[in-house]
Amino acid sequence: MAVPPSTHPHRLLPLFLGLFQGALLLFFTLFVIYDEPSAQAEDTNLVANQVYSTFPFFQDIQVMLVVGLGLLLTFLPRYGFSALTHNFLLLNFSMQWALVLQGLLHHFHHGQIHLDLHKLLISEFAAVTVLISVGAILGRASPCQLLIVATCEIPTYLASEWVIVSCLGVLDVGGTITIHVFSCYFGLGVSKALFRATQQPLHPKETPTLRSDLMSLVGTLILWVFWPSFVAVLCQPGDAQHRAILNTLLAMSASSITTVVASSLLERDGKLSPGHLQNGSLAGGVAIGMVADMAMPPVAALALGSLSAAVCVLGFRFLTPLLGRKLTLHDQCGIHNLHGLPGILGAAASVVAVLVAPKDPS
Amino acid sequence: MAVPPSTHPHRLLPLFLGLFQGALLLFFTLFVIYDEPSAQAEDTNLVANQVYSTFPFFQDIQVMLVVGLGLLLTFLPRYGFSALTHNFLLLNFSMQWALVLQGLLHHFHHGQIHLDLHKLLISEFAAVTVLISVGAILGRASPCQLLIVATCEIPTYLASEWVIVSCLGVLDVGGTITIHVFSCYFGLGVSKALFRATQQPLHPKETPTLRSDLMSLVGTLILWVFWPSFVAVLCQPGDAQHRAILNTLLAMSASSITTVVASSLLERDGKLSPGHLQNGSLAGGVAIGMVADMAMPPVAALALGSLSAAVCVLGFRFLTPLLGRKLTLHDQCGIHNLHGLPGILGAAASVVAVLVAPKDPS
Amino acid sequence: MAVPPSTHPHRLLPLFLGLFQGALLLFFTLFVIYDEPSAQAEDTNLVANQVYSTFPFFQDIQVMLVVGLGLLLTFLPRYGFSALTHNFLLLNFSMQWALVLQGLLHHFHHGQIHLDLHKLLISEFAAVTVLISVGAILGRASPCQLLIVATCEIPTYLASEWVIVSCLGVLDVGGTITIHVFSCYFGLGVSKALFRATQQPLHPKETPTLRSDLMSLVGTLILWVFWPSFVAVLCQPGDAQHRAILNTLLAMSASSITTVVASSLLERDGKLSPGHLQNGSLAGGVAIGMVADMAMPPVAALALGSLSAAVCVLGFRFLTPLLGRKLTLHDQCGIHNLHGLPGILGAAASVVAVLVAPKDPS
Repeated sequence: MAVPPSTHPHRLLPLFLGLFQGALLLFFTLFVIYDEPSAQAEDTNLVANQVYSTFPFFQDIQVMLVVGLGLLLTFLPRYGFSALTHNFLLLNFSMQWALVLQGLLHHFHHGQIHLDLHKLLISEFAAVTVLISVGAILGRASPCQLLIVATCEIPTYLASEWVIVSCLGVLDVGGTITIHVFSCYFGLGVSKALFRATQQPLHPKETPTLRSDLMSLVGTLILWVFWPSFVAVLCQPGDAQHRAILNTLLAMSASSITTVVASSLLERDGKLSPGHLQNGSLAGGVAIGMVADMAMPPVAALALGSLSAAVCVLGFRFLTPLLGRKLTLHDQCGIHNLHGLPGILGAAASVVAVLVAPKDPS
Repeated sequence: MAVPPSTHPHRLLPLFLGLFQGALLLFFTLFVIYDEPSAQAEDTNLVANQVYSTFPFFQDIQVMLVVGLGLLLTFLPRYGFSALTHNFLLLNFSMQWALVLQGLLHHFHHGQIHLDLHKLLISEFAAVTVLISVGAILGRASPCQLLIVATCEIPTYLASEWVIVSCLGVLDVGGTITIHVFSCYFGLGVSKALFRATQQPLHPKETPTLRSDLMSLVGTLILWVFWPSFVAVLCQPGDAQHRAILNTLLAMSASSITTVVASSLLERDGKLSPGHLQNGSLAGGVAIGMVADMAMPPVAALALGSLSAAVCVLGFRFLTPLLGRKLTLHDQCGIHNLHGLPGILGAAASVVAVLVAPKDPS
Repeated sequence: MAVPPSTHPHRLLPLFLGLFQGALLLFFTLFVIYDEPSAQAEDTNLVANQVYSTFPFFQDIQVMLVVGLGLLLTFLPRYGFSALTHNFLLLNFSMQWALVLQGLLHHFHHGQIHLDLHKLLISEFAAVTVLISVGAILGRASPCQLLIVATCEIPTYLASEWVIVSCLGVLDVGGTITIHVFSCYFGLGVSKALFRATQQPLHPKETPTLRSDLMSLVGTLILWVFWPSFVAVLCQPGDAQHRAILNTLLAMSASSITTVVASSLLERDGKLSPGHLQNGSLAGGVAIGMVADMAMPPVAALALGSLSAAVCVLGFRFLTPLLGRKLTLHDQCGIHNLHGLPGILGAAASVVAVLVAPKDPS
């Protein structure tokens, strides 16, 4: 009743995870330490301030990923418990795996790894990509398959993030490209690769009910509320962070209204589609990530939020069925509409912002 | 299945909202800017500190309004999804509308509007009044009607708040009068005006089930937990804010116990009524708002919390049926018991506190 | 429908609670005051900083206890609403009762009691013991019985905490022994004492459904997310608090993975047991409490988290049925597995840590 059984060797999942935990313990034993306790009172104050300025954001993001995203995935009534469980398992696994990989990279350059809250936060960001990607194959993959996806995706993400941020010098505080666009196309690729041949019919249990839609909407609302923390946590404290919070709030507020407009225009009887609402309200947060901390007028955030919600709803209405028919590409949660299209829009917006902005301050 | 269709022209809702979004964009383009980036390091620290001291409170309040209040309204099982959706839509619409109106008022006096977190917070407070008022007509009004209520209520609130706070000089950090009492009587007026003639029978879907009551109670608990943030966010940092938090905690704790006492005394079989618990536990928070930051002994907060819960439960048991029979006034969520009566009690308490207090410090 | 009726005198519960509220009001009138308002600007800043550094943690803990723990207890579908209600009532009652008792103790030594956020926090910690203990008799005791348990447990806790911390000098920031182990064995004792003779069959309504398991898991996840705040709130600001947060995060992350491993190895068909997941994921948080702020290598936190989750799952699989058969000891929520065994493990770990640690810094 709970988690669908792994294909037939029941022992594959515990074996895989058990080995991973063992390797993790070994890795931590050899390489990971905490900072030396700060000797001076000044340093102690500094650490305390860092904790107070980062930890609330960190907790907000944990709530988003564990509770908000988990609930968002429970819209398939009989698969709800499994979806929540898998999301939780994947988050933990991916975070640990990202910690190991980042540690190894760091180790080759600098020796022992000093663990702190910031490193955990970076690993958490890496884990987000996995949680987004598996939305494309929700309910159709075994836990083992999901773990293998995570195992492959984390190093790919770290490499792509390094190329985009360090090599190309792209600024992306909210992870619009590095997280959302990347994980969307990775997830679609996985979906295509795993379920290539089969023009699978929808599983009979895959129909949302009134009640499962309610739980899923609660998940959306939790994500909606805490999204500004996700975008702002890595910003420069002060004006940039303040602006990132405000821009995200504006973009998401505009998204919600535009989603209602677009959805009730597109549906024949003028009713809102729960799926549109659950996703469209968040599109602004995806799109704003790249430009959130830039010095742009507030109206740009509103416009971007509106536009991305419209694109997201249009995607659900027209693009998803098209992809399913033409490319036999199944996208169970519609990650292409929530993460792919608004992400590309956000990237385009950042290009415009960069082209326009320098004239003002210089 | 989701949102009940607007009367018969399905296009009214998107038309109305779409025009509003367009006007909002225009308004922001013309009038709203961010502060100039702070040039000096000191200013940056100041901004950062403001963000760290306001933003967690702001997030708490967002959780209250979006998740807590939304869930509280889901006690009608088949109307739950719509209630949550309407609450979310109204919050966004009202906040944007309050932002525009406040901006216009400000514009006539000072030119361009510098957007910051504090201004968003004030708009959010304005939006709360709408969310409370529509509780009286929950499940009986179309989305368009709800939006029209919001359109009218926000300017009325701003005017009344200006009269009460600026002209009369009333201190009301927690919004006991300006928010709770105002929105209660506004909501009752709307209910009377919209459903004047009809002695409507309860809709068949309007009977809470065990499960919908559980979700609604979760909403109450979320509101209960974060209420201190709502009351304390606008207080002077330091002692006043500390006292506001403590007083609110004491009042709400006393409310919960007294609700259980009052409810099990009034129900014939000694069982608790879910409706009493969902509302009475919060009555202390409504009543304490006006006196929360005053220098009064802690026992006053406890007594006020107890008293307001008792009044709230008595209201549900006796006053609501009476109003329905005598005045054909329907109050679906019992906002008169949760916001009206405890609000008046809190106002009376603040009069007493002002009369008694000056003797001590002088 | 809501709360099961108290045995037969329906008036016992309101009488008991009403008298308690009266006594509380009297006590507060006589003994409890707030601090004098700070005269100097420096003091005001100090108070403000205390509020900003404690209040977010305090709120996190409130969410854990009121929403998280409440939802965790809703796994019995028809008893869910009552479980949530009882949890909420007991939290408020126990906190107030602890405030009175601590106040009285303090009063005999120092005169009037100056209430502040820290004192409320300490009372909240005392209340946690009651919430844990009653897990053993969930659904089998009337509200009055639960309140009597709380009335007895709070003074016992205060005495035991005084002996352990003040007399024996044991450091236990996360309450591993003082809260978890204590309340576990107190709760088991209560269960034995109340239901001694009866080899009670499981009540027919005591079978979790898919949906009630989902809600319960959401409760677990909320507890999981905010647990670091619970462990770190009483730590020294700076390095110790930072370390406590990191250690708790690591331990709980390891717990979640190990729970999946252990549970799918033990269940015949390789499926996860919801009960294991709901409890095992939290075992690391229980065990880490005592050593969280010590200067130990990060791998120790991971190992402790893994070990405690394994012990917890093994306890559910083998020990709980054994205790039920041999000692007719019923432990409805399995508190012995979640709080007893991991707590003992954590205590053992702290002994090891103390024996090993001094060599390094000296």
